[in-house]
Amino acid sequence: MRRPLPRVRSMRWALFGAAWCIAATAAAQVPLPSWNEGASKSAIIEFVKAVTDEKGKDFVPTADRIAVFDNDGTLWAEQPLYFQGLFMLDQVKAAAPKHPEWKTNPAFQALVAQDKAALEKLGMKPVLELMVIANSGMTVADYDKTIRDWLANSKHPKFKRPYTDLTYKPMQELLSYLRANGFRTFIVSGGSVEFMRPWAEKAYGIPPEQVVGSQQEVKFEMKDGKPVLTREPKIAFIDDGPGKPVGIYRHIGKRPIAAFGNSDGDLQMLQVTAAGEGRRLALIVHHDDAVREFAYDRTSHIGKLDKAWDEAKAKNWIVVSMKSDWNRIFGFEK
Amino acid sequence: MRRPLPRVRSMRWALFGAAWCIAATAAAQVPLPSWNEGASKSAIIEFVKAVTDEKGKDFVPTADRIAVFDNDGTLWAEQPLYFQGLFMLDQVKAAAPKHPEWKTNPAFQALVAQDKAALEKLGMKPVLELMVIANSGMTVADYDKTIRDWLANSKHPKFKRPYTDLTYKPMQELLSYLRANGFRTFIVSGGSVEFMRPWAEKAYGIPPEQVVGSQQEVKFEMKDGKPVLTREPKIAFIDDGPGKPVGIYRHIGKRPIAAFGNSDGDLQMLQVTAAGEGRRLALIVHHDDAVREFAYDRTSHIGKLDKAWDEAKAKNWIVVSMKSDWNRIFGFEK
Repeated sequence: MRRPLPRVRSMRWALFGAAWCIAATAAAQVPLPSWNEGASKSAIIEFVKAVTDEKGKDFVPTADRIAVFDNDGTLWAEQPLYFQGLFMLDQVKAAAPKHPEWKTNPAFQALVAQDKAALEKLGMKPVLELMVIANSGMTVADYDKTIRDWLANSKHPKFKRPYTDLTYKPMQELLSYLRANGFRTFIVSGGSVEFMRPWAEKAYGIPPEQVVGSQQEVKFEMKDGKPVLTREPKIAFIDDGPGKPVGIYRHIGKRPIAAFGNSDGDLQMLQVTAAGEGRRLALIVHHDDAVREFAYDRTSHIGKLDKAWDEAKAKNWIVVSMKSDWNRIFGFEK
Repeated sequence: MRRPLPRVRSMRWALFGAAWCIAATAAAQVPLPSWNEGASKSAIIEFVKAVTDEKGKDFVPTADRIAVFDNDGTLWAEQPLYFQGLFMLDQVKAAAPKHPEWKTNPAFQALVAQDKAALEKLGMKPVLELMVIANSGMTVADYDKTIRDWLANSKHPKFKRPYTDLTYKPMQELLSYLRANGFRTFIVSGGSVEFMRPWAEKAYGIPPEQVVGSQQEVKFEMKDGKPVLTREPKIAFIDDGPGKPVGIYRHIGKRPIAAFGNSDGDLQMLQVTAAGEGRRLALIVHHDDAVREFAYDRTSHIGKLDKAWDEAKAKNWIVVSMKSDWNRIFGFEK
């Protein structure tokens, strides 16, 4: 008599299926696995529950669920120097043979000699001027290729890995979690859009049109009968500090309900977000893990967190400790 | 014996369900009902089928299905003057009491007297200068309210209806059809983003962040302890003609595969779109229906279609006749 066997088998499969289904649902219901239980994680989840609860007083329709993220120091690392800065310096060195006049330029001399004291004395302006010249003159397509090549072939001095490996796993989870709850997620960075767009979609799930950043002028022209855009040696827009709310207004056209930053350059973006009516989330990532990443705040040249720290404390914004709130920083960690 | 009845009943419901399902599918499969059968409609549908056919040689992944639309004259009417121009002129008149110096300004005098000959002689520059001043100084929130109020209370001189009624039904259907096929749809307009965003989502299904346009400078400042953005009397960016591909690059960061315009101001956007690799769609709306709308092209001051017309003919772009390709122009038509 063979009939009971299939029945037992099918029961077993049914049970297995049910168990798998429960496990899968449970996994989907535990958001932010790289975040330790604690005040930061709870505050994020409570905020999302509040604005997505249709019957609650804090409900926000999906059309208005806009979340903005700084990039350098918030979504990926920024030490010992903004990665885009490292790229642009390499561009300055590569362009030097075409610019004999730079030989007598004090900023160029200091750069080549890696003379930090001289650079500090000169300030950023003459260095930026060199960068803007070195990063112009080509078509936007050629520039895009240069960026992709650089990212594919460069490694971070401390981690000995490609820069695009240095995105923060907990923030990637946060981006996904927000989108799963009907948010539209934007990068709002002091860095240039060109430098982020080639990898932001893969790294963060953020398409090019949701990347807001600084912009160099580009010019339309016909070249050999083909329409091209050429990079001009002029800054069009600096999306940093008070520029960030301007960038958000120009590009997004709505006040975000959630903002994420890590430095004084994000202060005004956080202020504008927090000042809106209804429930808001303002969050600062604090770099306090010298072992797994870097530790810096009030006195750092890069990613200085001073005024925004005071405001966060005064306004009760969430301050995330990378050391204690995150059980994992990078995706490559075991 | 009652058993056959439920079976018959369930059969009947099943048939009814199947019939409904077929009818619903058929309705969903007849796109663009306001478009007459013909070369324009066929070309659009063939293009969409080609780029969405996963097994075809022209397949484009959804990430790259970007479509850009001019607004004035392409998605809504633009005669006798760009509607935003009418609004800004009203702003100039409203601001006059605060600007006694305008009394001796020739452009202002010509405007008040509606002296078309004098205005023609002066050119647009002095008029624009007045407009920029009249449309600055307030917060962006106050400006937004002024625009909404004006749109709610103004009527088109010919149609005696609110300006927002003058959107083109066939183009609304086209936007929906493209989105239903995985496209992301953007407005790329010479008009300002502020003027379009308040109504574009309802009219076109296009959210504020997908509206690309001209920009006046705005400045972040703290006012009575609150962060606000104030409008500055300076143009930041003109998204017209050669500015359109620049606006697309800055804001979208990808080359569109489909572009829709109606005038020489759209030429460069159409050129850049058409010059990409793979299958592309470039389409021009031709205003040739003086009865239902307006008829104008090569010699019009507003929406001049001259160089773009020649290029469309030379490059075999689609030229839509509003008169013969559209069986309905506005949604309010019976």
